[in-house]
Amino acid sequence: MIELPSLVDQHCHGVLRTELGLGTFEAYLTQSASPAASGTTFFDTQTGFAVRRWCPPLLGLEPHCPPATYLARRRELGVLEAGRRLLRSTGIGTYLVDTGIAGDLTAPAELAAAGDAQAHEIVRLELLAEQVADTSGTADGFMTNLAEAVHGAAQNAVGFTSVAGCRHGQALAPEPPGPGEVRRRAGRWLSGRRVGDRLDDPVLLRHLLWTAVATGLPLQLHGGVGDPELRIDRTDPMLLADFVRATAGLGTDLILLHGYPYHRQAAYLADVFPHVYADLGPALARTGPRARTVLAEALELAPFGKLLFSTGGHGVPELHVVGARLFHEALGRLLGEWVAEGVWSRPDAERVAGLIAAGNARRVYGLSGGPSSDGRGDH
Amino acid sequence: MIELPSLVDQHCHGVLRTELGLGTFEAYLTQSASPAASGTTFFDTQTGFAVRRWCPPLLGLEPHCPPATYLARRRELGVLEAGRRLLRSTGIGTYLVDTGIAGDLTAPAELAAAGDAQAHEIVRLELLAEQVADTSGTADGFMTNLAEAVHGAAQNAVGFTSVAGCRHGQALAPEPPGPGEVRRRAGRWLSGRRVGDRLDDPVLLRHLLWTAVATGLPLQLHGGVGDPELRIDRTDPMLLADFVRATAGLGTDLILLHGYPYHRQAAYLADVFPHVYADLGPALARTGPRARTVLAEALELAPFGKLLFSTGGHGVPELHVVGARLFHEALGRLLGEWVAEGVWSRPDAERVAGLIAAGNARRVYGLSGGPSSDGRGDH
Amino acid sequence: MIELPSLVDQHCHGVLRTELGLGTFEAYLTQSASPAASGTTFFDTQTGFAVRRWCPPLLGLEPHCPPATYLARRRELGVLEAGRRLLRSTGIGTYLVDTGIAGDLTAPAELAAAGDAQAHEIVRLELLAEQVADTSGTADGFMTNLAEAVHGAAQNAVGFTSVAGCRHGQALAPEPPGPGEVRRRAGRWLSGRRVGDRLDDPVLLRHLLWTAVATGLPLQLHGGVGDPELRIDRTDPMLLADFVRATAGLGTDLILLHGYPYHRQAAYLADVFPHVYADLGPALARTGPRARTVLAEALELAPFGKLLFSTGGHGVPELHVVGARLFHEALGRLLGEWVAEGVWSRPDAERVAGLIAAGNARRVYGLSGGPSSDGRGDH
Repeated sequence: MIELPSLVDQHCHGVLRTELGLGTFEAYLTQSASPAASGTTFFDTQTGFAVRRWCPPLLGLEPHCPPATYLARRRELGVLEAGRRLLRSTGIGTYLVDTGIAGDLTAPAELAAAGDAQAHEIVRLELLAEQVADTSGTADGFMTNLAEAVHGAAQNAVGFTSVAGCRHGQALAPEPPGPGEVRRRAGRWLSGRRVGDRLDDPVLLRHLLWTAVATGLPLQLHGGVGDPELRIDRTDPMLLADFVRATAGLGTDLILLHGYPYHRQAAYLADVFPHVYADLGPALARTGPRARTVLAEALELAPFGKLLFSTGGHGVPELHVVGARLFHEALGRLLGEWVAEGVWSRPDAERVAGLIAAGNARRVYGLSGGPSSDGRGDH
Repeated sequence: MIELPSLVDQHCHGVLRTELGLGTFEAYLTQSASPAASGTTFFDTQTGFAVRRWCPPLLGLEPHCPPATYLARRRELGVLEAGRRLLRSTGIGTYLVDTGIAGDLTAPAELAAAGDAQAHEIVRLELLAEQVADTSGTADGFMTNLAEAVHGAAQNAVGFTSVAGCRHGQALAPEPPGPGEVRRRAGRWLSGRRVGDRLDDPVLLRHLLWTAVATGLPLQLHGGVGDPELRIDRTDPMLLADFVRATAGLGTDLILLHGYPYHRQAAYLADVFPHVYADLGPALARTGPRARTVLAEALELAPFGKLLFSTGGHGVPELHVVGARLFHEALGRLLGEWVAEGVWSRPDAERVAGLIAAGNARRVYGLSGGPSSDGRGDH
Repeated sequence: MIELPSLVDQHCHGVLRTELGLGTFEAYLTQSASPAASGTTFFDTQTGFAVRRWCPPLLGLEPHCPPATYLARRRELGVLEAGRRLLRSTGIGTYLVDTGIAGDLTAPAELAAAGDAQAHEIVRLELLAEQVADTSGTADGFMTNLAEAVHGAAQNAVGFTSVAGCRHGQALAPEPPGPGEVRRRAGRWLSGRRVGDRLDDPVLLRHLLWTAVATGLPLQLHGGVGDPELRIDRTDPMLLADFVRATAGLGTDLILLHGYPYHRQAAYLADVFPHVYADLGPALARTGPRARTVLAEALELAPFGKLLFSTGGHGVPELHVVGARLFHEALGRLLGEWVAEGVWSRPDAERVAGLIAAGNARRVYGLSGGPSSDGRGDH
């Protein structure tokens, strides 16, 4: 086994502050927005089995105990205490929290406190634009307010994230739209919009991406099958090739999230373009005993300085646990095997493990050197 | 090893009633419609090697004996006796037989008798429409007769199957076409048609799909690389996303056939949409010692209640044998390994094995509880 | 372990005649045209680690020694002597050399002499056309000269290669363009062209492909992610389906290069179309300890008479070494494992290994029987 440093979880969300029933909990074990089909349950998934493998012992139960037993114990401890026990077992020292998901979720500082860790915010562009739209009367006002909001967010956040690829497909026109076109689209969108409506105009989505690129902060792009939004058939990161080429050399790094099952393609882009990085998150966290192979696939073409650990955890801390444990086990065993076979040297393996677990994220997001130091934006 | 119940083969075809020579037999070891390239043979494939591994001992020969030796022994026993010995070794208790393939193939009842099993029919929509067209003079007559034929088929069959995605690509317009458009297209198709001509009009293909959806019976959709028809480059099941979304909540289940090499995508759709299921058939039956890995890939995202065993066997019973043996070995060893590593519990592994081998198919197709009971449509 | 015959490397390039510094050498460890991202190095890739595993011992150093140590020793020996030691360790008896890459690279005869092997030329169509354009004044002259140049090349070369799919995407219109259209496009291209400009007009690219098909020599088609040219998002070989269908039965074999990560799709095409073959090159040479799995994936659907070994080596002989070693280890261990499990017989495994290592290439390219015999076009 290869030892890992304190982990940087470069893509996750907060956890719910409320108790969960069997059905509510089950909804977090899938990427579906629908209930399980009749006669089936989402506990019967790799995610469900992985939760039942690792989490019961953290709350004093046997591994693989029935879901109802586990949730009863969880309620007995209370959501706060259970969350603390779970999060503190992960080995994660720093959380980068995408605050763009709806729901009564813990803010970064709260997640950090529960997990005895640090946290930094990643701002979701579409939500920011929707919030700006809620309070902007005109297209001009919207554009000014949006520019200010993105600029302001860049002061405190360590990065931005976008779901443009999931809402409209990755194959957006690569160049920045002109200001006149943006104004027209903004006017049209605002005039037909009710408070809370989502942004899905492709011109405005592109405008958001380029506004974020201009800040120089790392920009996470959702792709792969992590988000069952409208365009699940257009989320192959290879479709981003033109946008990636258009943003080359500008000084802003792009992080491809959720590459699976296109993680080999994401790894290729990370090889070919200096400013492209590939996230390992849900590809590992959702695949149970297969995480080792999925990780190995990402390690085929990607330079080892270009891969980033994450859990993708959201809603329930069990997902942060599972994501961290699967990563730890997969990376440790995979590299350990390669060292044993003489394919890699041990010092190389330990160095690479440290890069993927934490070092690459620290470098890309400009985080301070270790979990005990004080970084910009710590909570 | 994990024990499996009597298998339900949810997608297969009948076997030939005639003796086979070396060349005729070889043609069933590939998905090609052409003879092998000069200097090569389709016996040199995973399918060919798997047949030579498992089938000779069932007919009293050594494993891996030369193809000519095997076929000589097969002729010596006669096609009927060889078929009986082969089929009865599979552990398949129920065959769901797609009767839409041309050739002198055994009907479901005949296959059931040979294999000492039960059989139910799956009706291929395109063939049904072509048969209706052969006897319909006008577009109106065709539409009425087709509606009656589909309705009638639904009384005896346990499901429908469609090759629309292979003939026209999966990315068909998702909504049902209007009756006027269907009538116009039917008129055009019928007027230019000679008896036996195939249906490939995209509007009529969509009309067929929606007619089948209205019956409420499970609908199998061919995809992946199982059928080298016109649009082999458009068979990624992700291209079905719009159709899948359009049929959500209507009460009709969709089964994605032949997902390979897009089986991870099929598994994702099975996770996200309650009415979507993924077939394991040719992905395992065609990949020999790799079946374990391919199965493991399908098990990454798919809920375990959403995967269905099949052999995809057609023409020669050797394919039913190989499909069943590879599935048995792959599932048994894969889950056995996970149990040994403590990743899954043994009761979970046994339950999941039972679901994939038979339970899921019994639930989806409304089959009776076990191979010895009498179900609707048994032969 | 399965024994292999002398290898035929069916796709590679020459090596540099000049000494290399750390940065120049590093550029060959990636498919990127850009320098490594700040804080990273392309030595931290599977290719880099594989070079450090196998090459230092060939020059008298410890495996996994630091890159600077290795390069110092390489300079000490001199580029010629180091090249000889490296190439002669590969077990490659015949190189098929794509001479279409720019740079001060060894010609086929020179590579053959350095490696104590034979070499044959593969002519790159686009470069040939660009050279013809450099000396042709009119469209008519260009067309005549091009036809002569292709015809002439076919006398000495053993095959052609095209990067049309990387420059314009694989989904080129499949049929040959008409002569009038070709003339118009040639005229337009020549009139705007400066010496050295690349050919990327889709009509002229198609014209080139069909001109090569007419010679009857094997035609290699670049695809997959081997070449980060313009259309990296359109290189899935499945997009070639229409062209493949259009060229079926004409007597010219197509070899799909660089299938990864679409090698399962390439293997499928090799199954379905008699004139299609799949290259294993960079898919293995770039993936280090994962080569065994990638090879296994190609072996799922491809008939064993349809897979061809190559290294894809170019620029530095270390890539030829790594490609050959990884192939040797991956194939030997994979087939050895299948034999040990009784899945394949040993004679079958040895025969298949010989086909993939050399026999298939000898048959497809019409090479003489073994490395010691004199074949057409030997140097």
